[in-house]
Amino acid sequence: MTSSLLAQKVKIWIYEAGELVQELEKGQLQVSSKSSRSDLVTNVDQEVQRFLVAKIENEFSEDKILAEEDGKSSLADMSGRVWLIDPIDGTINFVFQRENFAIMIGVYEDGIGKLGFIYDVMRGELYWGGAGLGIFCNEKKLESPKNLGAKDGLWSVNAGMYAQNINNIQAIGESSMGVRMIGSAGLEFISMLRGKTIGYISNLCPWDYAPGVVLIKEFGFKASGLDGLALVFDGQQRFIAATAQAYNEVMK
Amino acid sequence: MTSSLLAQKVKIWIYEAGELVQELEKGQLQVSSKSSRSDLVTNVDQEVQRFLVAKIENEFSEDKILAEEDGKSSLADMSGRVWLIDPIDGTINFVFQRENFAIMIGVYEDGIGKLGFIYDVMRGELYWGGAGLGIFCNEKKLESPKNLGAKDGLWSVNAGMYAQNINNIQAIGESSMGVRMIGSAGLEFISMLRGKTIGYISNLCPWDYAPGVVLIKEFGFKASGLDGLALVFDGQQRFIAATAQAYNEVMK
Repeated sequence: MTSSLLAQKVKIWIYEAGELVQELEKGQLQVSSKSSRSDLVTNVDQEVQRFLVAKIENEFSEDKILAEEDGKSSLADMSGRVWLIDPIDGTINFVFQRENFAIMIGVYEDGIGKLGFIYDVMRGELYWGGAGLGIFCNEKKLESPKNLGAKDGLWSVNAGMYAQNINNIQAIGESSMGVRMIGSAGLEFISMLRGKTIGYISNLCPWDYAPGVVLIKEFGFKASGLDGLALVFDGQQRFIAATAQAYNEVMK
Repeated sequence: MTSSLLAQKVKIWIYEAGELVQELEKGQLQVSSKSSRSDLVTNVDQEVQRFLVAKIENEFSEDKILAEEDGKSSLADMSGRVWLIDPIDGTINFVFQRENFAIMIGVYEDGIGKLGFIYDVMRGELYWGGAGLGIFCNEKKLESPKNLGAKDGLWSVNAGMYAQNINNIQAIGESSMGVRMIGSAGLEFISMLRGKTIGYISNLCPWDYAPGVVLIKEFGFKASGLDGLALVFDGQQRFIAATAQAYNEVMK
């Protein structure tokens, strides 16, 4: 199956998953906490993941899945074709704001990003694309944003890392045009794709960054661990992504 | 003129100002910096202010005006009827994102808030209302959000104050459900009105807080200087607003 045909198939699954979210969201949410009182999971996260996992397993039974919920959150390695799924990225926003969250899927082959999907459900905007395909919002092809320097735009940062001034990131924020925090990795990636922010620093799991990294790389952005080392697709990792120029400036 | 009739008049002015923004925004923006490289003003800020000031001066020549641009940014006192205007609140967002900004007007009499208007131009949502009128989004009357405690929701904070841990605000953020930063006071007030955040801490000028304070107080929120003292409507002031319960918890 070509990458383009596979993308069409996944788009349909994600739009269907978005309908599921909006249907379930009308009922009473079942919310519980995981590692801390602000690390939440809801019945919607779980049902969306089950829906997407069933689609993949049914059609591509050889493939591997790395997903946020329900014991699918680790893999021995990234060999073969791997689907990385965040059924509801920004669960806190989903629970408290009923917006500013996303359904996300990344498709990787032997560790190389092939396709990425970020669906801002409440705004009805599916950002998708991949190597050689270009990047789209629903059916509209997007233009690459400007390759701005680190001081010439807005950065998204993680509040906890900013408070602790990890790797001196306050200096990046203070010398830039400003700092923003949406609270959904997917929406931070969309902001970069649209040229509304130039970079993003946070502490992320593979399903948080894998889909977005495919998309921003297609537009020439760079992404890595905040230490400059490669992304490991295993557990939480301090993460940076930025326009090539901003990345080079802050990482040197 | 009744408060209700005055509100109808101001709504029309603000919708017209929004059309002006969208018209001017299609052309080349003229951007210059004021006190620092990230304190920006554009030709749109200036033209919107001129438009609104002309409407007020034409109709209410006895009234006083306190507005962000063009030498109208201080007043001897708040006696009489005072119009507080932020023609483009969130100018950085306006320039870099072309969204997430607002046109704002507050109407005060002898220092008491009477009417407030926050127009999220790009989403077409005008939040307005005042004492005894209720709060509306365009023509739809809003319900008051829940009076949640300080730990039970999201806070908006100013990045610089959070970095410096002014008044130990990192502890408020860390014990809450999380921290968000949109970069427009108006949109932070809208988030509170919609129950999407429970509080907001920043460093604001009178035209940044005056319109929103009228609206949130109508819903039972509290607002003051971060030191607990009254808002002074003169120069920048560290500011806090929150649900009554969250305010009482963090200020004691």
